[in-house]
Amino acid sequence: MDFELELKEKIKDIEGVDADKKREAYGYIDSLIKPPKSLGKLEKIAIALAGITGQVKNTLKKKRIIVLCADNGVTCEGVSSAPVSVTASQAVNMTKGITGMSSMAKHFGIETEIVDVGIAIDYDCEEVLDRKIRKGTGNIAIEPALTREEVIRAIFVGMERADRAALDNVDVLGVGEMGIGNTTTSAAVLAAISGALPGDLVGRGGGLTDEAFQKKLSVVERAVKRFLNSGSDKGDIINILSELGGLDIAAMCGVFLGAAKNRIPVVIDGYISVVSALCACRLNEKVTGYLFPSHESKEKGYKIAISMLDFEPWFNLDMGLGEGSGCVIAFQIMEAACAFVCNMGTFESGGICDDYLEDIRKQEK
Amino acid sequence: MDFELELKEKIKDIEGVDADKKREAYGYIDSLIKPPKSLGKLEKIAIALAGITGQVKNTLKKKRIIVLCADNGVTCEGVSSAPVSVTASQAVNMTKGITGMSSMAKHFGIETEIVDVGIAIDYDCEEVLDRKIRKGTGNIAIEPALTREEVIRAIFVGMERADRAALDNVDVLGVGEMGIGNTTTSAAVLAAISGALPGDLVGRGGGLTDEAFQKKLSVVERAVKRFLNSGSDKGDIINILSELGGLDIAAMCGVFLGAAKNRIPVVIDGYISVVSALCACRLNEKVTGYLFPSHESKEKGYKIAISMLDFEPWFNLDMGLGEGSGCVIAFQIMEAACAFVCNMGTFESGGICDDYLEDIRKQEK
Repeated sequence: MDFELELKEKIKDIEGVDADKKREAYGYIDSLIKPPKSLGKLEKIAIALAGITGQVKNTLKKKRIIVLCADNGVTCEGVSSAPVSVTASQAVNMTKGITGMSSMAKHFGIETEIVDVGIAIDYDCEEVLDRKIRKGTGNIAIEPALTREEVIRAIFVGMERADRAALDNVDVLGVGEMGIGNTTTSAAVLAAISGALPGDLVGRGGGLTDEAFQKKLSVVERAVKRFLNSGSDKGDIINILSELGGLDIAAMCGVFLGAAKNRIPVVIDGYISVVSALCACRLNEKVTGYLFPSHESKEKGYKIAISMLDFEPWFNLDMGLGEGSGCVIAFQIMEAACAFVCNMGTFESGGICDDYLEDIRKQEK
Repeated sequence: MDFELELKEKIKDIEGVDADKKREAYGYIDSLIKPPKSLGKLEKIAIALAGITGQVKNTLKKKRIIVLCADNGVTCEGVSSAPVSVTASQAVNMTKGITGMSSMAKHFGIETEIVDVGIAIDYDCEEVLDRKIRKGTGNIAIEPALTREEVIRAIFVGMERADRAALDNVDVLGVGEMGIGNTTTSAAVLAAISGALPGDLVGRGGGLTDEAFQKKLSVVERAVKRFLNSGSDKGDIINILSELGGLDIAAMCGVFLGAAKNRIPVVIDGYISVVSALCACRLNEKVTGYLFPSHESKEKGYKIAISMLDFEPWFNLDMGLGEGSGCVIAFQIMEAACAFVCNMGTFESGGICDDYLEDIRKQEK
């Protein structure tokens, strides 16, 4: 089977969002009893959802966060504060609902799906979905992380999980990760895509000393230099992911692609998530209409990546946990947006006097 | 009865938060299976709640938004895009759950209490709680808004509603408003408290044309000038509220005072809400420990007021609706903070290897 061809085939039919339905939602929202545009981004969220679902009024009953878990060979360079074994133990802990994201998701009735696409060590937990491509990746400082085929197979895993979500009638997806070392690989991938300097993209991840931070920066610089000196195509996303990425990033990219293909709204979490979303949009630009931001990550490169997608984060709680933790709160914001559209009165029905109606109409552009 | 004395009596016993319990919560949160501080402000929220309730683990089951409704005489100057009648009609609409805030509150199971402290026109709706002090206020451009006694009586209304919330076992309160013209009065009050120039504090409210905006600015300038030229005490909050305020602001100030007195966490909404919170903190500085911010209001003066309270807003959705709409989303963020503390595993219980535990301990300050 030709993986390259299969990928092209799978993503070529992603449809754009429904511009007519967005216009209809825009008009309806302006008929509601409030000063025009006074619900700000909540209005934009509601309009974007209408474009995806084809309905002005939406509800987000079934919510799911898919967490892609994998190890990264670059950890042998000492770029992380946590040992490799944490990827496996936290993947298992997520299935028990006792990690940061999963503990909050449980409270709000959000489903979580924990997928192993490349955890390096053995563990015993049937609740972690086994889609392992290989145990960890190559050390990007000195060698490619993955083959092109491995990258594409990881993308397929993500797309398959989005297909499953569609079959399960999931209304909105979130994309999280667990993979020690993945802020390093994300910075390298983002450097390759954006052309920004590693110094502007490397942050302190799960908490690094000054010395370890310098080491991480130099590792990303070495990796990007190796990539730039390689003979491979610098604009090709699969190539970038195979040289500098990880199985977590590739599979997350697949979830974004699959969500768009299935017309499911999908929420970006933090740094690793936004870099993966950027990869998905480079593979098919129509993905962008299905994306929603969440929080402003503490990681340095996040702002560059989210602005390349032309989004602004909705909230900033100084979070830097990953796992999809930002999606939990983003889902509540999106629910609020759905609620006002479904429940508010219109000027015609709400008993607001005609003068006001007239004044408001005059101010509309 | 001496109102002045009664106010002093009512607010003198507000207690500070429990610093020992905050320290205990801080320690417990650092024992949870995550990189230290990686849940950012969610951790700070959880610690602040512990200081209020005296418990490390909290739940926010019963949530209520109190909306203080009143008219402002200054509207006769043409400072608002909406006519005075909108205060009454939206107060009534809120009881039906069809306004922006109330439609979202209903979705999340949040109670709303709509209180008339000074609506100018007559209307027919028993669901609006009648605590009217008087019908509207004086026009602050040319005369005091209220007498000192009226201000204090409005504060008492707010405190009474907080007492009621305590009797009803409300876990968290939000403070909203409905009052055409109240971004004008809020700017005037904030100018008097902060010494900032009206030009830095006046925004476009519910949506103003350039011309109307200039009129609004000049009205605030006239009001503040009149206040500064009056013989009254410039540092006295009751005086500032009587010269430049409104019944909505005074009653909201009372809810903040009453929430603190009853040890109930209380959320600030937008511009009018934060100016009222500032007044409450000037009457008793211990109130500050019970306050939580929510969103960054579009109104220009918001940032100055929230920074005077030493808070940073949690989210920015370009909202400028009022009604307590920001509290709806803030409550979800606070629930998320409670959920991680209640449900997360500790390093001792979570199966994270000892190396990581040791590394993390080393990084802690």
